[in-house]
Amino acid sequence: MNNKDSVGIVEPSSASFKDPLLLECGKELKGFELVYETYGKLNNENSNAVLICHALSGNHHAAGYHKDSEKRAGWWDSLIGPNKAIDTNKYFVVSPNNLGGCHGTTGPISINPDTNKIFGPNFPVLTVRDWTNSQAMLADHLNIKAWHAVIGGSLGGMQALDWSIAYPERIKKAGVIAAAPKLSAQNIAFNEVARQAITSDPDYQEGNYLLENTSPKSGLRLARMVGHITYLSDESMKSKFGRELKEEKLGFGFDAEFQVESYLRHQGDVFSDTFDANTYLLMTKVLDYFDPADEFNGDLMKAFEPILAQILVLSFSSDWRFSPSRSKEITDALIGVKKKVSHIEIESSLGHDSFLFPEERYVEVLKAFLGSPS
Amino acid sequence: MNNKDSVGIVEPSSASFKDPLLLECGKELKGFELVYETYGKLNNENSNAVLICHALSGNHHAAGYHKDSEKRAGWWDSLIGPNKAIDTNKYFVVSPNNLGGCHGTTGPISINPDTNKIFGPNFPVLTVRDWTNSQAMLADHLNIKAWHAVIGGSLGGMQALDWSIAYPERIKKAGVIAAAPKLSAQNIAFNEVARQAITSDPDYQEGNYLLENTSPKSGLRLARMVGHITYLSDESMKSKFGRELKEEKLGFGFDAEFQVESYLRHQGDVFSDTFDANTYLLMTKVLDYFDPADEFNGDLMKAFEPILAQILVLSFSSDWRFSPSRSKEITDALIGVKKKVSHIEIESSLGHDSFLFPEERYVEVLKAFLGSPS
Repeated sequence: MNNKDSVGIVEPSSASFKDPLLLECGKELKGFELVYETYGKLNNENSNAVLICHALSGNHHAAGYHKDSEKRAGWWDSLIGPNKAIDTNKYFVVSPNNLGGCHGTTGPISINPDTNKIFGPNFPVLTVRDWTNSQAMLADHLNIKAWHAVIGGSLGGMQALDWSIAYPERIKKAGVIAAAPKLSAQNIAFNEVARQAITSDPDYQEGNYLLENTSPKSGLRLARMVGHITYLSDESMKSKFGRELKEEKLGFGFDAEFQVESYLRHQGDVFSDTFDANTYLLMTKVLDYFDPADEFNGDLMKAFEPILAQILVLSFSSDWRFSPSRSKEITDALIGVKKKVSHIEIESSLGHDSFLFPEERYVEVLKAFLGSPS
Repeated sequence: MNNKDSVGIVEPSSASFKDPLLLECGKELKGFELVYETYGKLNNENSNAVLICHALSGNHHAAGYHKDSEKRAGWWDSLIGPNKAIDTNKYFVVSPNNLGGCHGTTGPISINPDTNKIFGPNFPVLTVRDWTNSQAMLADHLNIKAWHAVIGGSLGGMQALDWSIAYPERIKKAGVIAAAPKLSAQNIAFNEVARQAITSDPDYQEGNYLLENTSPKSGLRLARMVGHITYLSDESMKSKFGRELKEEKLGFGFDAEFQVESYLRHQGDVFSDTFDANTYLLMTKVLDYFDPADEFNGDLMKAFEPILAQILVLSFSSDWRFSPSRSKEITDALIGVKKKVSHIEIESSLGHDSFLFPEERYVEVLKAFLGSPS
């Protein structure tokens, strides 16, 4: 723990749901566990709750530390805490690990009650709507009738948007950050390379690697490396690494010699040690499938008709994964159906990952948007 | 053969060099073979020769057909031929397979005369300058004192640029198309993912797959898939595939279901059937290492001092692999040292691959630039 402005030591909770959850794929989960963390206090009116939605590889540990010795705080600690953008002195912040995750919530590494074996590759393919529905059950469990706000970046922003469509009465504000109304063919293509890297690893064992006591680490490592490139901007990579060599001279061999090579290998190694491959596959599919306009013949305005929430769409200038023009698609459709929306583009050189960093204007915009709980 | 404007049936030639070639890595090739094709006729003054330099996965088969039954013409057939941009009625076009290649020229799949075994992973790591030097030996072999032009796209453009630096007296015009003065950290990062995909394939066998009777097809396939994404623009992928599904409904599984997924898998399959993995690794390293300014403390103008050739720098609006701004770096440095340069940006939605397609303005610009042999 190395951060005085943090929420401090936090402990995850778990909610157990016995009722079956009908999924969009047509299958049913007989019951499930959601692991989550909370920061700050729920007020007497239960009106100050803010739901945090995580992205592809995130989890419930968004702020604070699990123990004193933990070196890195939760993934959004720079924005969640006392007096921070998402101010835990004002809000009761709820951060779940999504269904299908690998950090405690029911997912591919959980036991399938039908077979008493690990789900593995048989865990159903999910959608953002499935997550929204399960998060609504968590809201019930916590006696939260309506969220003051639902906020997330990237895939998290898609959840915030979906909340405003699926449960218009239960969400006052939606913070849709660094997101898109659906993936582009290029986005899907990058996800497909990641999936192929995992499933073509011989240790993937058709998804049954845990039963077979293997681990498709090599494939997961590649998947993360390619993903990581899309999270950074060309500019941020340039300022971070340029063409700096590890040694003074070219090696004329295939060891990592440019610093960006070592960095990527390291990122891949760390990730593949801690993340479940089937969960990763699942999360990429959730991304690919997100397309609220699909059931309206591609008409995003129709999809947005039910929305009552006030919506903040935030994009970052150097984000090429979900570029500002993708945010503009969301904004334009919301304007088209006269919804309460503002779109702010933040100047940042950090690419898609910008949403993780507390750039001053970004923080101010979030603070102003969240305002005070009624 | 399905193209009447083609150079028709062509037959590759081979030049055998007995003299040793000292490489930039410090090693020596005792001798080597260069496979090449020629189109058109060398004039009496030997002044109409045009050298074509291929890119990462290209080879000497740039135009025409090897036999009547061949379905696809050479890789630049749309630009090389009678009355085409590179007009074989006017020029004697020479198109070699680069050293380190896998289509007949000495490379990793050749026999190492020192060991009488396949070079495999022991083939020396090359640089663009090594290629330029070997191509100069080919020019000698063909009695070509000076090229009317050296032209290439992508890595081929880097060779054209290097020719103008290394042999200023032997090149009248250089066509530097869709290139960059050096790779960015992001470019290197994509290459690194490709290399890791290949070398982490268990069938790679530390590069000795041919001896071990295996083939790192799975890694090479992934490498090609990720490369392919960078050759296309987001826009061209959108118009080619959008989010079209192969079947009418989402499959909620991991079979290829978006058309872009099948396309990428197919591209990867075809490529991994026909290309050598060690050659691919080598080619990515040649790209990473290209940096003519390096020996001048990063001063590109200094590197360009020796140039005498007239240079055409061509970029394409939707190319994000080597964006127009990278071409501008080349142009600005050439202007800085008062060289004969023009820079044209072609509007095209086809991304980096634009250089392969005969867009009208592109063709006209090339024709005007090449002019008439003196």
